[in-house]
Amino acid sequence: MSVKVITVGEKILGANEEKARDNKSRLDEHGILTINIMSSPGAGKTTLILSTIKNLRKKLRIAVIEGDVASSVDAEKVNELGIPVVQINTGGACHLDAFMVAKALDDLPLKEVDTLLIENVGNLICPNAFVLGEDKRVMISSLPEGDDKPLKYPAMFADTDTVLLNKTDLQPYLDYNTDAFEKAVTGLNPDVVIFPVSCKTGEGMSAWLAWLESAVKDKKKK
Amino acid sequence: MSVKVITVGEKILGANEEKARDNKSRLDEHGILTINIMSSPGAGKTTLILSTIKNLRKKLRIAVIEGDVASSVDAEKVNELGIPVVQINTGGACHLDAFMVAKALDDLPLKEVDTLLIENVGNLICPNAFVLGEDKRVMISSLPEGDDKPLKYPAMFADTDTVLLNKTDLQPYLDYNTDAFEKAVTGLNPDVVIFPVSCKTGEGMSAWLAWLESAVKDKKKK
Repeated sequence: MSVKVITVGEKILGANEEKARDNKSRLDEHGILTINIMSSPGAGKTTLILSTIKNLRKKLRIAVIEGDVASSVDAEKVNELGIPVVQINTGGACHLDAFMVAKALDDLPLKEVDTLLIENVGNLICPNAFVLGEDKRVMISSLPEGDDKPLKYPAMFADTDTVLLNKTDLQPYLDYNTDAFEKAVTGLNPDVVIFPVSCKTGEGMSAWLAWLESAVKDKKKK
Repeated sequence: MSVKVITVGEKILGANEEKARDNKSRLDEHGILTINIMSSPGAGKTTLILSTIKNLRKKLRIAVIEGDVASSVDAEKVNELGIPVVQINTGGACHLDAFMVAKALDDLPLKEVDTLLIENVGNLICPNAFVLGEDKRVMISSLPEGDDKPLKYPAMFADTDTVLLNKTDLQPYLDYNTDAFEKAVTGLNPDVVIFPVSCKTGEGMSAWLAWLESAVKDKKKK
């Protein structure tokens, strides 16, 4: 018995791209390094953002856009740290788009920001097709999701600049093959930078923070 | 400083529903209990299906439809067990729809099936809006995703018949509040049945298997 495979095509709309270019020009004017952070639900986007703020707030002026289908629990956590933040509730939409981000930019003090961290909706598929005006894409993939995720969701892994392999503290309790994961990701994306981290324990975070600081400096030079 | 919230509307297309009714009639004719299994990427859909097959294959005739953006790794695993399976590759689409399932039904031996398990694309948002012709919806939410998922992805939790709270074996290593999770889910969906399980160790699986067997019997009676 062989497995039957049906392939279904899909058209992806693209009027979003022009608006993303507008956002990018606006952010470039202020020299703001903008990061689009994408992952599955619960992979650790908010924890990464909170930890990055705590570690770098004395060195960098950070602002945040939080994207969620519903609720503002993540933005409240950022707000508690005294960091400028806007929550976008997509009301059912499964990704942020450049129009939503343009509105959010109106409510941020762009003159006083070095880097803007945008937390996309938790989803490994749809956010990939919608550029927002970002300089860099950062994906988080967490160990409990399994090492086969690049095979099943290849587009997002192929398009990102960096992958944070999060929740390394759970390695002893999982059947997770880091080598297989890294091989699959670099097969799709030879230039990707992979950082194994635990946002919970702090393990590996220094390499990510150094990468971010360096990218902010590069942006300022332009 | 207060948090700014922007709410964005979205129209969801619905021509899918008629096709789903066709699928349902076709499956009803054969008395097949059809389950639409939904979750985040890596929450344990395939592991649940494989474990269910191993436990119930002597009692029930099971068939499977596997939905993925790409690859057929999941269907290969089911095929190895000698169970009829069709892989749908959505080619970028973030959910199954009733048209894809209708095609897959053409390739399954419907006369020899008691229950059809459909593994949807890993996504906590989009699959919810697309009925496939199922009798029951089963969601898997796994502990490493965090106990706040019902707040952020309320629609899917509100629409499901059953939630399997998977990966309970990881509880000792996580800050996860099961009571808060259950309270949030029942707040959205008072009639939901929640089964804490570990598809890995088998803990709690007997309750899920009994629920499934009972639902198959109820369907045959109709």
